[in-house]
Amino acid sequence: MFDTHISLAHGNGGRLMKALITDIFARHLGNPLLDTRLDAAPVPAPTGGEMVITTDGFTVQPLEFPGGDIGSLAVHGTINDLAVAGADPWYLTVSAIIEEGLEWAVLDRLVASMAGASRAAGMVVVAGDTKVVPRGNGGGIYFTTTGVGLRPSGVMLGMERIRPGDALLVSGPVGDHGTAVLLARESFGLRGDVQSDSASVLPLTRSVRQLSGLRFMRDPTRGGLATVAHELAHMTGLTVRLREHDLPVRYSVRAVCEILGYDPLYLACEGRVVAVVAADQADEVLRHWVDSGAEQSTLIGTLETGPARSLLETILGGERLLEELEEDPLPRIC
Amino acid sequence: MFDTHISLAHGNGGRLMKALITDIFARHLGNPLLDTRLDAAPVPAPTGGEMVITTDGFTVQPLEFPGGDIGSLAVHGTINDLAVAGADPWYLTVSAIIEEGLEWAVLDRLVASMAGASRAAGMVVVAGDTKVVPRGNGGGIYFTTTGVGLRPSGVMLGMERIRPGDALLVSGPVGDHGTAVLLARESFGLRGDVQSDSASVLPLTRSVRQLSGLRFMRDPTRGGLATVAHELAHMTGLTVRLREHDLPVRYSVRAVCEILGYDPLYLACEGRVVAVVAADQADEVLRHWVDSGAEQSTLIGTLETGPARSLLETILGGERLLEELEEDPLPRIC
Repeated sequence: MFDTHISLAHGNGGRLMKALITDIFARHLGNPLLDTRLDAAPVPAPTGGEMVITTDGFTVQPLEFPGGDIGSLAVHGTINDLAVAGADPWYLTVSAIIEEGLEWAVLDRLVASMAGASRAAGMVVVAGDTKVVPRGNGGGIYFTTTGVGLRPSGVMLGMERIRPGDALLVSGPVGDHGTAVLLARESFGLRGDVQSDSASVLPLTRSVRQLSGLRFMRDPTRGGLATVAHELAHMTGLTVRLREHDLPVRYSVRAVCEILGYDPLYLACEGRVVAVVAADQADEVLRHWVDSGAEQSTLIGTLETGPARSLLETILGGERLLEELEEDPLPRIC
Repeated sequence: MFDTHISLAHGNGGRLMKALITDIFARHLGNPLLDTRLDAAPVPAPTGGEMVITTDGFTVQPLEFPGGDIGSLAVHGTINDLAVAGADPWYLTVSAIIEEGLEWAVLDRLVASMAGASRAAGMVVVAGDTKVVPRGNGGGIYFTTTGVGLRPSGVMLGMERIRPGDALLVSGPVGDHGTAVLLARESFGLRGDVQSDSASVLPLTRSVRQLSGLRFMRDPTRGGLATVAHELAHMTGLTVRLREHDLPVRYSVRAVCEILGYDPLYLACEGRVVAVVAADQADEVLRHWVDSGAEQSTLIGTLETGPARSLLETILGGERLLEELEEDPLPRIC
């Protein structure tokens, strides 16, 4: 029998589970370090720097959207958490919780996409797990990816290195991912040409992580740029001052947000870096980023002596306090 | 406002998500290596042996059952995958996908249980992630745990080391976890006093992993002992011969399985070890296990020159082929 949909028996540890693992997961993600018969995978420990670990769950709805899907998103998300910590990605583990009834062809596409994204970043999948939950107990599929990486010796990053006068940069337009996912949900009844920015930021972080003036990097995912700004202010005790005029937001993103009442500054990006850098090295960072393909990299603000708050200088010359995110603007965005 | 249930806003990256992480996850799982503000956690790389990695998703229903809950189960499961690989657990990451409406008090108990289980095994939580999915899109909570461990130099285990004549051992009664979870589901309308065997098997594996005659260990979770036997036969090309007379199965487990038509050999254990060992060291392994508290450790069979199949010598003197698991006997058992 050829299976077209995932059944509960694909999760039972028996014949069909082996078929699922062999025909989809091992076929796409196979590499010399992946042995699906092992309980735990032996791997060389990263050396020549500091080992770093990160984990993330992914529940985005719909599973496929313009510019990406939950498979590549789950890989990019974990790569990016390692990348903004100044690290190179080494090992990836993948746990899939699959809802009974998911189409075999969809799962195949998602895992193929996952494989492409990890291969592109030089990251190998070393361990995995699959579970199947009964229909009505999951949103098609949830992935959890865990990444192990290596931060090379000499890379020094951390919020505690931030000083008054530092510059705040972003590597491209904000709100693309959130808007693309929003438009992909039929319930909104809108059509648009916005693509998710889901991508590895590793080329960007690698190009600047050794600069002495680089203080801190983060990828503005859930909660968006405004949430990163709020956290920077809260943790450093400084005032984060953003200039609306300089903030890169696509016209189509701005238009959709205006119609639906969203603020793009609070919507998720999945392929951008926010960096804090000594003012005299801001241009150098921007140059490296542009050279790496992030052509809309921009200086968007500064950090100043307190109070701890995040301010937006509006185009009209006023000031608006960027409050901490309260209600969820858009659930299941990543 | 004091929250009694998880809402979507607890997953948005803003104020309530920070409260969730601080008030529950960081409060219970806190340790010097856990910094919830970081994208990726720097940790010392394991040295003095081989680094190993494992990951597992947990979707058990109900979330709490006699003898355990999904929190401690998720920790024990990952510890045990490292343990049967001959390793010591070092680092744990935790990803929680929470369904809107989960009681705050339940989540608090589950994470406290998780903390107790990891602390008992000397494993520290170094990174985590929380997501919230809308009501109807998850079974209360799903956990994915990833473990990094160290297999000390000199520990040599693997199916390729198995030889004809080797002995097969199990560290205690089988089918307890599966039966306990089954009874905890109201839908079955049965009551019983069976407790899950959910526990760390680390004391057992540590006590024997340096023995020269120890070939291979595995924890018989999904698919149970029969699935491990089937896999051993399939991978080694040998006949696995089990003696029903010697198989430890509790009276209450056997009784429930007879009423409901389950075979305890196919039901999950979550605190047992199956080991293949050179025949002349079987007694030594059993002695170490009994000394470590596994009083019902038993020699249950042998591996013989092919054909590749798994046979049960019944109490009545017949032989029964243990087929590969086909349909799922009991979904969402782990």
